[in-house]
Amino acid sequence: MGIQNEFLTSALTELNPFNNTSQILDWIKEKNQSINVIVKKIPFNKLDKWSFEDNTGSIKHSSGKFFSIEGIRVITNWGKVGEWEQPIINQPEIGYLGIITKEFNGVLYFLLQAKIEPGNVNNVQLSPTLQATRSNYSQVHQGKKPLYLEYFQNASKHTILLDQLQSEQGARFLKKRNRNIILKVEDDIQIYDDYIWVTLGQIKSLLKYNNLVNMDTRTVISGIPFGNDISFIMPNDLQDKILSNSFENRMLISALDKNHAINTFDRILNWLTALKCKYDLEISPVSLFNIKDWVITDCDIHHKDNQFFKVIAAEVEISNREVQHWSQLLIEPLQEGLIAFIVKKINGVSHFLVQAKLECGNFDILELAPTVQCITGSYAKSMDLPFLTYVLNARPDQIRIDTLQSEEGGRFYKEQNRNLIIEVDENFSVEVPDNYIWITLNQLNTFLKFNNYLNIQARSLISEINFIK
Amino acid sequence: MGIQNEFLTSALTELNPFNNTSQILDWIKEKNQSINVIVKKIPFNKLDKWSFEDNTGSIKHSSGKFFSIEGIRVITNWGKVGEWEQPIINQPEIGYLGIITKEFNGVLYFLLQAKIEPGNVNNVQLSPTLQATRSNYSQVHQGKKPLYLEYFQNASKHTILLDQLQSEQGARFLKKRNRNIILKVEDDIQIYDDYIWVTLGQIKSLLKYNNLVNMDTRTVISGIPFGNDISFIMPNDLQDKILSNSFENRMLISALDKNHAINTFDRILNWLTALKCKYDLEISPVSLFNIKDWVITDCDIHHKDNQFFKVIAAEVEISNREVQHWSQLLIEPLQEGLIAFIVKKINGVSHFLVQAKLECGNFDILELAPTVQCITGSYAKSMDLPFLTYVLNARPDQIRIDTLQSEEGGRFYKEQNRNLIIEVDENFSVEVPDNYIWITLNQLNTFLKFNNYLNIQARSLISEINFIK
Repeated sequence: MGIQNEFLTSALTELNPFNNTSQILDWIKEKNQSINVIVKKIPFNKLDKWSFEDNTGSIKHSSGKFFSIEGIRVITNWGKVGEWEQPIINQPEIGYLGIITKEFNGVLYFLLQAKIEPGNVNNVQLSPTLQATRSNYSQVHQGKKPLYLEYFQNASKHTILLDQLQSEQGARFLKKRNRNIILKVEDDIQIYDDYIWVTLGQIKSLLKYNNLVNMDTRTVISGIPFGNDISFIMPNDLQDKILSNSFENRMLISALDKNHAINTFDRILNWLTALKCKYDLEISPVSLFNIKDWVITDCDIHHKDNQFFKVIAAEVEISNREVQHWSQLLIEPLQEGLIAFIVKKINGVSHFLVQAKLECGNFDILELAPTVQCITGSYAKSMDLPFLTYVLNARPDQIRIDTLQSEEGGRFYKEQNRNLIIEVDENFSVEVPDNYIWITLNQLNTFLKFNNYLNIQARSLISEINFIK
Repeated sequence: MGIQNEFLTSALTELNPFNNTSQILDWIKEKNQSINVIVKKIPFNKLDKWSFEDNTGSIKHSSGKFFSIEGIRVITNWGKVGEWEQPIINQPEIGYLGIITKEFNGVLYFLLQAKIEPGNVNNVQLSPTLQATRSNYSQVHQGKKPLYLEYFQNASKHTILLDQLQSEQGARFLKKRNRNIILKVEDDIQIYDDYIWVTLGQIKSLLKYNNLVNMDTRTVISGIPFGNDISFIMPNDLQDKILSNSFENRMLISALDKNHAINTFDRILNWLTALKCKYDLEISPVSLFNIKDWVITDCDIHHKDNQFFKVIAAEVEISNREVQHWSQLLIEPLQEGLIAFIVKKINGVSHFLVQAKLECGNFDILELAPTVQCITGSYAKSMDLPFLTYVLNARPDQIRIDTLQSEEGGRFYKEQNRNLIIEVDENFSVEVPDNYIWITLNQLNTFLKFNNYLNIQARSLISEINFIK
């Protein structure tokens, strides 16, 4: 069985003899009760080892590692605002987001971790096996070595199922990327206390709950390819799960079919090249002390209109981490966000309405983004944003996915976004504005293999797509 | 006939009833005689509108457009030198490298231009239909509008056959990219004096001559895909051209076959991701006035050991250009360069030995490069460079391509590199060092569609590959 079929079989399997889904929910609840978490906002001057740099105003760690908060000026001809300044997270290190998998009884299981990050709304979330920056694993913070690190440092000894560089939030991170990697191990492997084996189908099922599967797990699984074999013969006990004429079945076909896309790959690439040449993105550093429209107080850096986000400082105690007590910077959003894909059957296959979106921290000007991606506080201002009104007024019978999902709690304080997938019928026009294009799931999966095409919001939505009810 | 078959037919056609290849050679000779060119080296203070900026030492144009020469510090863990400083060309604009094509009698013809650039070794070279930076075509220099510009500005009115963002020399340009675009027009089109219709087969045939087809033409045609249809039925008169058991035939099969590559796409991508995570590239600006190991004189900026290249100033007069008289900066190399691909038949299909190479101006750390890429002056130092000794000692019967090709004469003064393709037999080991991998031409063509994978040296060599004797 090829790798892609192994992934597909795992995605179609929710039955887990080791841990059924309700046991996993109980296990997470129990972890939540047993782990002590204290996150307390503090003034900047109470931060340990973090301080403002004299000239640039950047806030940096005394080791020069981890990340820093810096000021940038943005000039662009994309969108309505041509120039602005803002703080941004600069973290040039490429971190690991790694999942170990292993086959049991012919099904691939994923080793996830019950992990608490200081910014999590609900403490424990299911995280990849390993989630570590180079500063973490080179032990700048003098903590214990992250568990399972050696598997990823010696990745070539195992089967590498996926290995991609993918972007983080382009509005908050300056060109940040992580290494999304999935390994398959053959030998016995020790399972530590906070780790659990789950199928891909279970992860997708757990994604129906709010804020349970963290962003890092979502981005890693979003990149999983399922192949092009539309006639894939499923084991008998899986076949019943595929209800024909269901949304799940249409998604499965869109993931596997490579012959009915209305836009060829070349056409999509040409479209994106033309847009990258049309839009400019110029980023230059500015001192945080002089940054336009932002105010530094003892306790935060905020926008003068209290919009967008704040930079805050926090003291953190988490009982099951390598380092149990530390202080750090966090980004606190001031508005909830909305991300939504519109999906429509065209030429017999479901297509996703994808937007080419510029964000200031993007690695390469534009990335492929959901149909709608905005912050709710700007609804009033942005009702002319294409498709926003449509999405907000979608009929209940059009809504296929509607959950709240968290951003990465290691950087973002209680940030959650509404994730929506809306399925539209034949009345919805195939004609779309210049910055939008229809792409099948199979095509999106190919873009995912090449780095820096889909933004993290698009990937989050894709990770939630389930092929079984 | 699909686009890819049209490209293939043109590549297999050298017979051109309008201009046979020897007429084209005569035509270029004639152009060379009729166009007046004067390029005179001058001191920096005689430059018109270019000057050193007070703080940064950067040399800029008074308009703020075109390009600038800036100082950078490079820190990397790739290669033997971990840190250095150097001048680099910063040209953030994406320029057009555009070719217009049109079908005559079932064959696609390419409209090339006899163009002189100040740095060209031999004056006239065959250039794309349009070769223009945004500063050119937004007429910063108050010249005439470039011919055929409107076709590319209204590209969507024509058939877009290719549209790619591709990198320039990573050792000389800071993250520079150009838009490589090929259009097909249906309507009649006016052909101006210095333009000529040629088939793709003729371009490849002209590439057997030194310094005749310029770098811009080479990069555009290197991206042309020929499809995956190994059973492509050629018109009868073309079939004779394909000699079985010839290098040309092996190249054609390597271009079209997608089923016999020894490394899957996923494996190649995983290999590259792992290397991008292993190697760091940190670039920071330094003042040209303080740049380590480089000396500024009245007439040049050169390395203290007279290695690498010099930045020089020149006064230029060219009689057939939009602006006929100007002064500008140029980069003059101090050593000739060598680029070479080793090619070997594996699993019945020719594979190219590709290197993942870091250059300081790379957009994304590493790009796929030829097996050997170095400057000849460093031979002595770099005889331990993998495969260099092998390539330099190749037997005549292994050498398939051996030409001198120019770098872009708009920036580089009389710079030419030796382009080599060496075909090795079964004794050559399939085992290669970690930074090297075997890739078929068909796979390289797919990488070319996605931006920033193949460096300009790899593309130059690929452009020279001919499918007919």
